[in-house]
Amino acid sequence: MAYRLRDLADVAQAVVRGDGEVEVDAVAPLTRAGARHIAYCASPRYRAQIGASQAGALVLTPEDADAFPGNALVCPDPRMAFARIAHVLHPPERVPPTRHPSAVIDASATVAASAAVLAQAVVEAEAIIGEGVVIGPGAVVGARAVIGEDSRLEARAVVMHDCQVGRRCVISPGAVIGGEGFGYVRERDGRWLKVPQLGRVVLGDDVDVGANTTIDRGALGDTVVGDGVKLDNLIQIGHNVKIGEGTAMAGCVGVAGSAVIGKRCLIAGGTGIMGHITVGDDVEVTAMSFLKGSVEGPGRFSSSLPAAPAEAWARNLGRFRHLDELARRLHRVEQTIKQILSGRNH
Amino acid sequence: MAYRLRDLADVAQAVVRGDGEVEVDAVAPLTRAGARHIAYCASPRYRAQIGASQAGALVLTPEDADAFPGNALVCPDPRMAFARIAHVLHPPERVPPTRHPSAVIDASATVAASAAVLAQAVVEAEAIIGEGVVIGPGAVVGARAVIGEDSRLEARAVVMHDCQVGRRCVISPGAVIGGEGFGYVRERDGRWLKVPQLGRVVLGDDVDVGANTTIDRGALGDTVVGDGVKLDNLIQIGHNVKIGEGTAMAGCVGVAGSAVIGKRCLIAGGTGIMGHITVGDDVEVTAMSFLKGSVEGPGRFSSSLPAAPAEAWARNLGRFRHLDELARRLHRVEQTIKQILSGRNH
Amino acid sequence: MAYRLRDLADVAQAVVRGDGEVEVDAVAPLTRAGARHIAYCASPRYRAQIGASQAGALVLTPEDADAFPGNALVCPDPRMAFARIAHVLHPPERVPPTRHPSAVIDASATVAASAAVLAQAVVEAEAIIGEGVVIGPGAVVGARAVIGEDSRLEARAVVMHDCQVGRRCVISPGAVIGGEGFGYVRERDGRWLKVPQLGRVVLGDDVDVGANTTIDRGALGDTVVGDGVKLDNLIQIGHNVKIGEGTAMAGCVGVAGSAVIGKRCLIAGGTGIMGHITVGDDVEVTAMSFLKGSVEGPGRFSSSLPAAPAEAWARNLGRFRHLDELARRLHRVEQTIKQILSGRNH
Repeated sequence: MAYRLRDLADVAQAVVRGDGEVEVDAVAPLTRAGARHIAYCASPRYRAQIGASQAGALVLTPEDADAFPGNALVCPDPRMAFARIAHVLHPPERVPPTRHPSAVIDASATVAASAAVLAQAVVEAEAIIGEGVVIGPGAVVGARAVIGEDSRLEARAVVMHDCQVGRRCVISPGAVIGGEGFGYVRERDGRWLKVPQLGRVVLGDDVDVGANTTIDRGALGDTVVGDGVKLDNLIQIGHNVKIGEGTAMAGCVGVAGSAVIGKRCLIAGGTGIMGHITVGDDVEVTAMSFLKGSVEGPGRFSSSLPAAPAEAWARNLGRFRHLDELARRLHRVEQTIKQILSGRNH
Repeated sequence: MAYRLRDLADVAQAVVRGDGEVEVDAVAPLTRAGARHIAYCASPRYRAQIGASQAGALVLTPEDADAFPGNALVCPDPRMAFARIAHVLHPPERVPPTRHPSAVIDASATVAASAAVLAQAVVEAEAIIGEGVVIGPGAVVGARAVIGEDSRLEARAVVMHDCQVGRRCVISPGAVIGGEGFGYVRERDGRWLKVPQLGRVVLGDDVDVGANTTIDRGALGDTVVGDGVKLDNLIQIGHNVKIGEGTAMAGCVGVAGSAVIGKRCLIAGGTGIMGHITVGDDVEVTAMSFLKGSVEGPGRFSSSLPAAPAEAWARNLGRFRHLDELARRLHRVEQTIKQILSGRNH
Repeated sequence: MAYRLRDLADVAQAVVRGDGEVEVDAVAPLTRAGARHIAYCASPRYRAQIGASQAGALVLTPEDADAFPGNALVCPDPRMAFARIAHVLHPPERVPPTRHPSAVIDASATVAASAAVLAQAVVEAEAIIGEGVVIGPGAVVGARAVIGEDSRLEARAVVMHDCQVGRRCVISPGAVIGGEGFGYVRERDGRWLKVPQLGRVVLGDDVDVGANTTIDRGALGDTVVGDGVKLDNLIQIGHNVKIGEGTAMAGCVGVAGSAVIGKRCLIAGGTGIMGHITVGDDVEVTAMSFLKGSVEGPGRFSSSLPAAPAEAWARNLGRFRHLDELARRLHRVEQTIKQILSGRNH
């Protein structure tokens, strides 16, 4: 659907420069945008491309605006403005209410009139599917699970029995909510006795869960994910973990059981978080780190180890293996020098 | 179902203190347990909460027992005792035998009378499903695969053709048993030629496989997982790996092809294990480590790198990048001191 | 099917030694091969087993050939030769064209006559399924997605709407192609605003994607995976990543958004690649490393940290935590020595 630049300016809280009546239909990348597109400059690195853009309009900072002769929306934060415009120009497809004939919906389940249960999905006994919910193709909702209004389970997502998903959540393809936690005690003969995992997973509102991410149900209490938490793909959340509101985790993060993570934390990709620790609010952890102990927020923590040319790496690593010895040698050297100096002074 | 404390004492090999006739229905967390619940103190950290617990009964160590005025089961290992009690009070739901009409079961497959094949499941040609087995919603059992007695495939789990699952195994939602191994040879022109992956995956008895975990089939021989092995979520097991009885691996571990891992090993989360190495029995590897070479057991191995405040980390890391140079400088200093000292002695 | 050794010699570009008329039916491991099997020696480590092999024929290097009294194919690269032979003796099972009655195929989708859509699969509106394609049990092909000739989606694989898969690709069980990228901007009040993910995933020809691997769709442009790329299991590829032809990545690798990776790269298991960086052609990264910045190829990069006995590790790690201080102390020592020496010289 076409929008006038003037109307998008309102959406984006930006100022029109040029013709506010010009219409655009879609967003596009800076270098590929045409007359019916609106684009933006994502980074100063791409600044040189602004002048040559064929876009019908650009979203630009006041500093960049001079570089573009065409129509523009000028504002301090083009990325945010562009996100808002993209939502208006490309609203998520509304899935019409349906119960696909191939879906298996238990007679005791409650499915709201406006919900869509798509092909091959399964909704088990006493599950509750709220208004506007979409249960994607092949997705599974376990017994007594509750899916809040306007939430969406993508293809083959699974929400296991008794778990709760809040409103406006997105559970990406293949994600598993409520698998059994990894809880065992070791018998005297070495065999593992499973500890029954009797808790649930409770997701707040506006939670996004990435593709093939797994969140285990609690052992006794619940695993709790706060409102507005965003989890990327292939993340593992152990049983009884608590994640505070607005925290975001990038791909391949692992959080071990019973960790308590604060609000508005930013956990970069590949990071591991130890079990049973407490992470304060507004904590940031850099990529591929290992948060082993509790930390207070706000703060930024790291054990990232950036790769180097393999030979240089091997040389330094070889020294690292003898670092304790090296430190002892330094200590001896210091002692010897002290003796030399004291000898000279006498 | 209600149990008398006296009967649970037998289950837990514990001693009743107080009223053995009191009945409880369920386990609960220490702080939320009521009169019909039994709870325990998981860690000395929670000791202060014992006195105020409203639980009908607690499982306690002799040392902690004095802190609680109510009924108690006293034993040296409350965690183990509590696990046994939880199994009795919360037995896994028995799924009644069924072949759900939406399931697709090949005419040549063998499904035991007591097995349950749930909604949207697929059982391919000549597969064998043992007594008491549950094939969960949307799960797939490939051609000629064998699922042993009382094993459970959870929602959307996949066991590929010709693979074998032992008895009493649990394959969690989304897990993939028997995908093709990552085996290629490089042609002279740089293209990859796939090496046909002709082996199977063979799981022993009592193996648990976590959600979205993947175990690749062998290239020529089999990938073999021993009895009682417990694998957490999002683990990758490469082709031809062997894992010994009773070994446990936490989430996000990766084991590269042809590694041979011993019995009763404990591999903590996020760890990588190199291909073609041998790991002895009773080896422990700490979280987020990289086991690159063969090791004998028993032993504990680590390359965990705990995160520090980002600035301190950066300073130390900057030095690490010059560690080889630093070691050389130390050596020169030591030489110089030797010369100084030998000069003085003359 | 049986082949004469003489014919397999042609396939493998090898020289027959012994009886070229002998027939074999199958490949087998060196130690388990019988009279109707052909085997090879995968590594010098197994050389001692050659002499005792019961195989009908072996593929051997000229150096190893003397150790075996039986029939042999002699060539410089037995692994490559063996892979070619395995392809001939064990061709992939041809799945006969079918549209399984339980599959849900939208009336507007195009499914080629020679394609097979297996049990419980879903093909959504306007999707295009090419000749010879196999859509495995429970797999999902989204609206307008295109699956190229002779490609195979294994059990429960998902290709989301509008994505493109080239020819002869294999999408392993549980893999998700085209989930939404992890793109958000933070509102002033701390909440995350999703950036609509409007791009696609475009896979070239001959791409293999491992089990439960996830490849996110682009935000504006596309995520692009070049011809012949091989991805192992549990890999995460972020939005707008580009991967050059022939690059291979082992299990558990994570590539953050907008990274551009060159041709013929080898990325070992567990490695993380930072977003928005550029990796040249023919770059190799060792296992469990973190490639944080752009690098030019060819070259080999590493931040692998091999595990050591835990106590030795702890000692060195303790020193690492004070490495900056240690370096400063060394500097002071050097200064002091300089003063001592200059004092002596006066």
